[in-house]
Amino acid sequence: MNHYVSHLEAAIDGTVLPFGRLANTHTGRPIWVRYHLDEVRAAVAPAAIAARAPSLWRYRELLPLPLDQEPVSLGEGMTPLLHCARLGNQLGLSNLFVKDESQLPTGSFKSRGMAAAVSMARWLGVKRVALPTAGNAGGAAAAYAARAGLECFVFMPHDTPVVNQFEAQLYGAKAFRVNGLINDCGKIVKDGAERMGWFDLSTLKEPYRLEGKKTMGLEVAEQMHWHLPDVIFYPTGGGTGLIGMWKAFAELAELGWLRAEGPAGGGLRYPRLISCQAEGCAPIATAFAKGERFAELFPNARTVASGLRVPVAVGDFMILDAIRASGGTAAVGAEAKIAGWMQRASSAEGISICPETAVCFDVLERMAAAGEVKPDERVVVFNTGAAPKYLEAMPFELPTIDKGAVDWNLIER
Amino acid sequence: MNHYVSHLEAAIDGTVLPFGRLANTHTGRPIWVRYHLDEVRAAVAPAAIAARAPSLWRYRELLPLPLDQEPVSLGEGMTPLLHCARLGNQLGLSNLFVKDESQLPTGSFKSRGMAAAVSMARWLGVKRVALPTAGNAGGAAAAYAARAGLECFVFMPHDTPVVNQFEAQLYGAKAFRVNGLINDCGKIVKDGAERMGWFDLSTLKEPYRLEGKKTMGLEVAEQMHWHLPDVIFYPTGGGTGLIGMWKAFAELAELGWLRAEGPAGGGLRYPRLISCQAEGCAPIATAFAKGERFAELFPNARTVASGLRVPVAVGDFMILDAIRASGGTAAVGAEAKIAGWMQRASSAEGISICPETAVCFDVLERMAAAGEVKPDERVVVFNTGAAPKYLEAMPFELPTIDKGAVDWNLIER
Ligand SMILES: Cc1ncc(COP(=O)(O)O)c(C=O)c1O
Ligand SMILES: Cc1ncc(COP(=O)(O)O)c(C=O)c1O
Repeated sequence: MNHYVSHLEAAIDGTVLPFGRLANTHTGRPIWVRYHLDEVRAAVAPAAIAARAPSLWRYRELLPLPLDQEPVSLGEGMTPLLHCARLGNQLGLSNLFVKDESQLPTGSFKSRGMAAAVSMARWLGVKRVALPTAGNAGGAAAAYAARAGLECFVFMPHDTPVVNQFEAQLYGAKAFRVNGLINDCGKIVKDGAERMGWFDLSTLKEPYRLEGKKTMGLEVAEQMHWHLPDVIFYPTGGGTGLIGMWKAFAELAELGWLRAEGPAGGGLRYPRLISCQAEGCAPIATAFAKGERFAELFPNARTVASGLRVPVAVGDFMILDAIRASGGTAAVGAEAKIAGWMQRASSAEGISICPETAVCFDVLERMAAAGEVKPDERVVVFNTGAAPKYLEAMPFELPTIDKGAVDWNLIER
Repeated sequence: MNHYVSHLEAAIDGTVLPFGRLANTHTGRPIWVRYHLDEVRAAVAPAAIAARAPSLWRYRELLPLPLDQEPVSLGEGMTPLLHCARLGNQLGLSNLFVKDESQLPTGSFKSRGMAAAVSMARWLGVKRVALPTAGNAGGAAAAYAARAGLECFVFMPHDTPVVNQFEAQLYGAKAFRVNGLINDCGKIVKDGAERMGWFDLSTLKEPYRLEGKKTMGLEVAEQMHWHLPDVIFYPTGGGTGLIGMWKAFAELAELGWLRAEGPAGGGLRYPRLISCQAEGCAPIATAFAKGERFAELFPNARTVASGLRVPVAVGDFMILDAIRASGGTAAVGAEAKIAGWMQRASSAEGISICPETAVCFDVLERMAAAGEVKPDERVVVFNTGAAPKYLEAMPFELPTIDKGAVDWNLIER
C-alpha cells in the first residue's frame, strides 16, 4: 500500500465512494477523504515528523497523495506561529498568537489547498483545471498548475484586487474578469467543464483542497507541542480552512497524538472555532444566528475583504456543524474597521495583516472586552494573506521631501 | 561568554574595532563581524543545527546577537531551494535551482538583514532607526522595527513601486518619498542622524544586515548537504547579499563543515559568483569590466528592477573582490527582457519571479548558450523578491467575460 486513504465519503449522507479516480461532489455537496488512522498510527509518530523538512508534506501519511508520487510543491508550509505580546497587551490577552500564512508561496494560505489538489489532479491524469476565485485561490491555482505543467483557467469578479489579477496572468493562467460575483464565476466553470475539458477546482467541489488546508490545524498542533489552542479566529469565505482544521483535530485525536490538558486524568479540549465574516457578506454568521444548518445566499455581497466575498458556500453545513461542535460562534466584523485594523495590527507586530484577518481582530476585540475570550486563553488568529495583495483596502499616501530643501519639521511631525 | 564574536574589523584596512557598542562605518567604509570560529566548531555541529527550528536563527552561533537575547523575529529563513526541471530544460541545464526568497516576511530577502540589524540595534539601546531604500529594505525595516517597538523613518525615491510605499506605511514607519535616487535619500538620513537621533540602517553602513544576509549562503550549503553549488546568480544592488554569501562560505570552510567535491582527496570548490545588474544601472559590471576595485557613480540610473537602482555602493570593493576571488563575473541584463523573463520564469515553474531576478535569467540564458555555464553544473539563482511587489514592471490586462453571454471562443483563444 502506498497511501493511507481508506475511502471517500459524501459529507451530506455518508455514502462511501471509491478513492483513486477523479471526484468532484456527491449530489452537489462536498466529499471527505477518510484514512486508515490505525495504520497511520503504526507507521509514523510525532517524533519522526519533527525530523522532517519544514513543509506541509511532513504530514505525508495524513495526505491523500500516494507516497511514491512526487508532490507538486513550491516549498509550502510550516508557517510561523508568532507570539504577539504587544498586540495581546492592547487587547488584554497574554497568549495571543498569529499564524502567519502570508509567508506561503503566492502570499496566501490558498497555496496549501492548491498544493494538495493540483498534486492529486496531476496524479489522476488531469491536464486542464479551472476555477472561480475571490482572488487568492486563482493566484495559487495558477502557480501550482504552472509548477505541474497543467493548463489553468481562472475566473474572477471584475473588481478583484489588481494584485490578484496580476499574479494569475504572471503564472501563465488564462485569467478572466467577469461582471459578477464569485458564484457567477463558478457557474461559468460549471457550464464549461465538459466542453472545455476542465477539471473543476472550485472550493469544496473536489476533495483535496480541504486536505491541504487541514495542514493548518496539524501545524498549529505540532507547533504547540501537540496541545491545541483554546480559541481560533478564522476569516471564513468558502470555509475550507475552518472545516479542514476541525477535521485535522479529529484525526489527531483519533491517532492519540494530542496531549490532555490540565492535571493527569484531564481530557482533550478542542478549540472554540470563531468564524469571522464581514458585515457586507455574512451568510454563515446569519445562519448561525438563526440556528440553521444551511445558509442562504447573502444578497448584495460587498466587502473590501475580498476573500470573504463568498455569498453562498457549498460546505455551509460542514462549517456550521464544526462551529457548533466546537462550542464556538460565527460573528461579524465591521467594514469601517478593516483598514484601521490592518494598520493597527501590522504596525503593532510587523506582520502583514490582510483585510480578512482585520475582520477577525474586530471580532476578537469585542469578544475579549466582553469576557468571551479570557485573558490567559491561548488565542490563535489566522493571517490568511499578505496585506500588499490589497492595495485597494487601505488608503495610503506618502509625503514628499524635496532633496534640495529638506523640511525637517515635516519629517518629525 | 554568550556570543562568539571576536571583534569587528574595518573592511578597507583591517583596523580592529570593539564589539558590543553601536557601530556604523570606518572611514566611510563597511565593517566586518569576525567570530571565534574554533569555539563555534567546538560548540555546535551541523547535525545539531539540522534539528533546530526552520528559521535563520538556527545558525545562532554564527550570528552576532548574544545567545541570551531574544531575536526580533517574524519567523524568517529556511526558504525553499526549488529544483526547476522545466525551466532548466529550456536553458539546457539539468541542475537549475531557485532559492525562493519571495516567501520571507515582507516578500523579500531584505528581511534577513533587517532581522539581524534590528535585533542588534535594539540590544544596543537604539530607539529610532532611519534608512534610504530602493523599496524592499524600507518595508522590511518598517516591519522589524514595528516588531521590536522602535521608531522607523524611511526615505525612498518618488517613483518607488507603490507596493513598497504601501507596506512601509502599513507597518507604521514614517515613510517619505524624495525627488531623487537612493543616494539622495541616503544623504537625508546622513544629514538627519544627529538632529533626529537616528541610527543609520543603510546597507553596509552598519555591520549586521550583512550578517543576516549571510544566512542565504548558510542555508544553500545546508540544503545541498554541505556541498556548494557550482555557480550562483545574484541580482546586485548594494551588494550585501553577494558579499554576505561569500563570507558565509569562507566561515563554513574554516569551520570544516563543507564537503570536498569529487573523489577522496578532492578539495573544496567555491561557486563562481555571477553578479547581475540591469543595463540602466550597472556600476559594478562597469568597474569589473574595467578591472577596477572601486566603482564610479552610474549616471542617470534607471531600471524597472527597482532594487538594482543603486548607482553607487559603499561596499563596491567588497563585491568586486568576492566576484574575482570566486572566478565569477559581473554581467548586465537587458531592460527590454525583464517583463518577458518575469512571465516566462514564473509561468514555467509557478515561482513568483521579481524583476531583479528576471535580469539574472537574461544573463544566465546568454552564459548557458555560450557554454560559460555547463549543462550539468549546479546553478542557483536567487529570487530575491515577490513579483506582485512590482505591478509597474509588467503590463497586464485581463479580458472580461459577460456572465449573461459567455464567449467560449474568447476563453479558448
Ligand atoms: C485571504 C483570505 N482569507 C480568507 C479566505 C476565506 O477562506 P476559506 O475559503 O477557507 O473560508 C479567503 C478566500 O478567498 C482569502 O483569500
Ligand atoms: C528584490 C531585490 N533584489 C536585489 C536587490 C539588491 O540587493 P543587494 O543590496 O544585496 O545587492 C534588492 C535591493 O533593494 C532588491 O530589493
